[in-house]
Amino acid sequence: MSIYLHDIPLPEAKARLQSALEQADLWCVLGSENIPIDENAVGRVLAKPIWAKISSPHYNASAMDGFAVLAEDTLGADPSSPRSLTQFTYVDTGDPLPERCNAVIPIEYVELLDERGEITPVIRSPTSIRIRAAVTPWSHVRPLGEDIVQTQLVLPAGQALRPVDLGAVAAAGHQYVKVAHKPRVAILPTGTELVQLGSDLKAGDILEYNSLVLAGQVKAWGGDPVRFPITPDNLDAICARVEEAGREHDLILLNAGSSAGAEDFSAEVVEKLGMLLVHGVAVRPGHPVILGLIRKGDSQEARVGLRTRPAYVPIIGVPGYPVSAALTCELFVEPLIARWTGRPAQELPVEQAYLTRKITSPGGDDDYMRVAVGKVGNKLLAAPLARGAGVISSLVRADGLVLLPRGMQGAEAGDLVEVHLYRSRAEIERTIFCIGSHDMTLDLLAQFLSEHNRRLASANVGSQGGLIALKRGEAHLAGSHLLDPETGEYNLTAIRQYLSGVSVKVLGFVGREQGLMVKPGNPKSVKSLEDIRRPEVRFVNRQRGAGTRVLLDYQLTKMGIPVEAIQGYKQEEYTHLGVAAAVASGRADCGLGIPAAAHSLNLEFIPLFHEIYQLIIPKVFAESDLLVPLFEVMADPKFRNAVVNMPGYDVSQMGKLMGEV
Amino acid sequence: MSIYLHDIPLPEAKARLQSALEQADLWCVLGSENIPIDENAVGRVLAKPIWAKISSPHYNASAMDGFAVLAEDTLGADPSSPRSLTQFTYVDTGDPLPERCNAVIPIEYVELLDERGEITPVIRSPTSIRIRAAVTPWSHVRPLGEDIVQTQLVLPAGQALRPVDLGAVAAAGHQYVKVAHKPRVAILPTGTELVQLGSDLKAGDILEYNSLVLAGQVKAWGGDPVRFPITPDNLDAICARVEEAGREHDLILLNAGSSAGAEDFSAEVVEKLGMLLVHGVAVRPGHPVILGLIRKGDSQEARVGLRTRPAYVPIIGVPGYPVSAALTCELFVEPLIARWTGRPAQELPVEQAYLTRKITSPGGDDDYMRVAVGKVGNKLLAAPLARGAGVISSLVRADGLVLLPRGMQGAEAGDLVEVHLYRSRAEIERTIFCIGSHDMTLDLLAQFLSEHNRRLASANVGSQGGLIALKRGEAHLAGSHLLDPETGEYNLTAIRQYLSGVSVKVLGFVGREQGLMVKPGNPKSVKSLEDIRRPEVRFVNRQRGAGTRVLLDYQLTKMGIPVEAIQGYKQEEYTHLGVAAAVASGRADCGLGIPAAAHSLNLEFIPLFHEIYQLIIPKVFAESDLLVPLFEVMADPKFRNAVVNMPGYDVSQMGKLMGEV
Repeated sequence: MSIYLHDIPLPEAKARLQSALEQADLWCVLGSENIPIDENAVGRVLAKPIWAKISSPHYNASAMDGFAVLAEDTLGADPSSPRSLTQFTYVDTGDPLPERCNAVIPIEYVELLDERGEITPVIRSPTSIRIRAAVTPWSHVRPLGEDIVQTQLVLPAGQALRPVDLGAVAAAGHQYVKVAHKPRVAILPTGTELVQLGSDLKAGDILEYNSLVLAGQVKAWGGDPVRFPITPDNLDAICARVEEAGREHDLILLNAGSSAGAEDFSAEVVEKLGMLLVHGVAVRPGHPVILGLIRKGDSQEARVGLRTRPAYVPIIGVPGYPVSAALTCELFVEPLIARWTGRPAQELPVEQAYLTRKITSPGGDDDYMRVAVGKVGNKLLAAPLARGAGVISSLVRADGLVLLPRGMQGAEAGDLVEVHLYRSRAEIERTIFCIGSHDMTLDLLAQFLSEHNRRLASANVGSQGGLIALKRGEAHLAGSHLLDPETGEYNLTAIRQYLSGVSVKVLGFVGREQGLMVKPGNPKSVKSLEDIRRPEVRFVNRQRGAGTRVLLDYQLTKMGIPVEAIQGYKQEEYTHLGVAAAVASGRADCGLGIPAAAHSLNLEFIPLFHEIYQLIIPKVFAESDLLVPLFEVMADPKFRNAVVNMPGYDVSQMGKLMGEV
Repeated sequence: MSIYLHDIPLPEAKARLQSALEQADLWCVLGSENIPIDENAVGRVLAKPIWAKISSPHYNASAMDGFAVLAEDTLGADPSSPRSLTQFTYVDTGDPLPERCNAVIPIEYVELLDERGEITPVIRSPTSIRIRAAVTPWSHVRPLGEDIVQTQLVLPAGQALRPVDLGAVAAAGHQYVKVAHKPRVAILPTGTELVQLGSDLKAGDILEYNSLVLAGQVKAWGGDPVRFPITPDNLDAICARVEEAGREHDLILLNAGSSAGAEDFSAEVVEKLGMLLVHGVAVRPGHPVILGLIRKGDSQEARVGLRTRPAYVPIIGVPGYPVSAALTCELFVEPLIARWTGRPAQELPVEQAYLTRKITSPGGDDDYMRVAVGKVGNKLLAAPLARGAGVISSLVRADGLVLLPRGMQGAEAGDLVEVHLYRSRAEIERTIFCIGSHDMTLDLLAQFLSEHNRRLASANVGSQGGLIALKRGEAHLAGSHLLDPETGEYNLTAIRQYLSGVSVKVLGFVGREQGLMVKPGNPKSVKSLEDIRRPEVRFVNRQRGAGTRVLLDYQLTKMGIPVEAIQGYKQEEYTHLGVAAAVASGRADCGLGIPAAAHSLNLEFIPLFHEIYQLIIPKVFAESDLLVPLFEVMADPKFRNAVVNMPGYDVSQMGKLMGEV
């Protein structure tokens, strides 16, 4: 049977895997072991229910420090007619109730008397005790079985043990618990282009880090990951590794080679060593997924009879792009580990959120879109992040996933969508949503805010985009540097234009230089903005609405340079670092931006202009608890120093109120 | 300074601890270490931000398998006028873009031609390629820095590493991360009455399991727990242990001895070895909490200069009752570990829920009430659990906490309260709320349902109470065995009386015997219900509204026995096992109940009656997805067998529809 990269829907792929595992007797808890009840048992999943072997308490116990008595002896005592008792026993909390007694009087309600009937401070051996209230039978007693009665169910099988469970299991008379084996998962990175962390990198080398992510996931889900060394793209070498891994593991993750290219051997390997069940699943990112079973070699354990395992081991061909790899494992590996340990599969909490911008989807796939999530006012917002399957930083920044199911071609800005949340509601509620112009000090700000228990989620859409987001109620603040050529003022004109009806504060943040970034040595001898019209100079631009673009257009008009004369005017980047990267990689010869960006990538910088970058904050948020730390950070000399230490910045206006509109 | 068990409000207690730790230079990240980026780094907290050392990709990379070209060469190609190119290079996904090229054409959009201009299947060395569409510059290219640009912030300090973070950190050129030390927490169980797990128990022995719970908590919160052996109640012995623990640990948890009894040495120990900051916090459960600092002895590490630590170690005197102990650590230890590792303190998600019954509170304390949480219809419900600080099973069963703040004297049934949830919303939504009569097969049902991805939360309030809960929309089903003496039918009369307006299905569940439980050997020679009126026979009753109580009252009336004649008629238990425990512990001589309960505690059983126990299920729930597994389990021969194997049960009517009302 050959199934050659023909995408099938996700539920069908899962069903095929399940059916094959059922036939192989692998759709069940894989095995169990007895482990002692201690802190290392936390997170392990019970393979058997816990029934109480003993009751807790296992005797009638005093619940207080005091005197055990027979309740009937106290009848009639009241404040006006105290009663003295001579039959009593002092008990500490937890002491067993003596034979004749059926109640405890706490020590603070008792007067201790000596042999002469005088009050005495001696606690344990008074001659008699005087009480001023009767007690009912069994008061201040923890009766046998109050907590747990022998034979009752303490915990069901399938429960992942929490710290408090350890106590209950111990109280019920157990020293050991039977828990599911941790599934052993072999992670096999393959690819001739892969290099280990710490290697000297040359073009074409790809750092192998998917195995780290997959191992971290497997461990977090309760499996036992083993990372294998990198195997080059060679059919025989990969086959040998897979067979080796199959001997001692419950699951093999083969990463990558799952697509249909010339050096993609995964499908062939699976067909050769077992059976290919699925090649291609209609999910995005991630579609070149392989599911199969391989025949199991004789393991050491099987040979010595320690473990009798069916003759197959499932194998998943995991796509190579890091986002695809991580999502594939969420879809297929987590539920498998859940099944194999007997716990329920994880379900991310779901909340409704408003989409901040239009998105499109191919329609044929279940499309998992990473989103940043923030709460602005009372609205929960989902801001789509970069879609590329290679962009692992988008997964790091993702607060959740929005699923666009097969058949859906996209969604509009403002649509209410379901977000599967990676983060708790509490984390989201301490997230400051900053949308607008990009400045490199925002990274520093994020770091300082995180020390004040705030997350800064920033989206770079340019100064104008930021003001529009504020108007729509989709951000707590916006960074902006929109120069009004007529007044020479920054931002105020644009705020009046885009933000009518919203009261905002305009706060100074940084002053910064703008200029041209060029390659080291300035090979095209770019000296001024004039030079970018030269035909051999390739320019890289910022996107429309960016303050830097506004600045460029203003200067070009002033100098009478038509945009058509500039090669690369239409090649747009969304950040200063994006422009710097374009120059550094040779995609362009120069671009307009800030010196810190040039500096990061060892470019030369030709300063041309000085400009003002401000924070625009709606008053309602400026006065909220959420933003208090922002003002603290702007006033913090450590933060100001860190900013000034970046090239081309001044902080003379930082935190100053520059205007209110 | 002596502060002798004077409860202070929680915020003041926390402030005193923080202030003392600030003075001791211990209110900060305690230290950091470099660790390799692998699966063991998951959960560790970054002590330094991660800034990118390299860009990712670090070169312009092909995003597809295909042919690298100069985009300008493709100008003019369209479906009707294809264009042949001779300048191209085959590239695999991830290969660097050759010098002259600025775009990639995916292989599936290209025709490969041999030297004669014929189409050839050879992939890598065609003589020319033919295309039918132009490409724009940089299409199907992952430009340098697309994912991460050198110098940008990848992760802020204080971030607990997730699996995907490992990938991003590696992609940014790191092999190691600087993470906060795991705080080392010494857990010292003290108490002469304590015995180790596995000991032969005699009355008065208390199994020491608090240290397991505390160690599990510390580990789950990111600390490194060390459990010490049990120390008896002896001032010098405890001092010696505390000094020993102080040498090599960051925090000492001294459990228990924190109250003010004769053998409570914790406060004295802290005063002797350092300073007592707080003795008594106004929280319930948990108030006898001690907070202090002890002077630190010379540690091995300090002597060799590996670690320079301030001269104090904080110590927390943790109360002895298991629920108090666990909650005390949630309140004080978790935030401390958060501070010491630099991460934000945990915040449980909060939801609004309706209280199912009235609760009272002393008013002077912050009162943390454990609740079971379930969703019945559209209502989230919080059902208060047993309040006793000794009842660890209540913490195991708790789905969340309701805080009644100081000054609040209680809350009414139906009040909307805030629940701090231990469980995810998904877990709560697969919880079946069963309120009503107690039967021991409900434990078995819980176990079988858990294998079908359902949690059974059952509250025992008696048959009548269950019907009332259904009427109020506070349960999915109720177990009931209310005999109508006039018709001889079970439940139907009561349903008509209590459930008017609610359509329900009545399903057979079990038939069972009811009879008298007595001590082995039947020392009071109880043979029939007649005997319970004998003056030397102490009876234990079930609570009002319980089907067993109804049965008793019916039989007593029939036999003409006045309830006043029965000793212990007013002593009430809420479950069959509670009645059995009362007899086993000598609190009573006999009680009416089911044979399984007698059997569990090795009591003798005198069968008297046969009765029918049914499940009453509102139709709206009977037809819901949530309850599908209930019907599956009732039809499962394995479940029926397990029930029949308990003494005195028959399952002949299990799952049968006995009536609809």
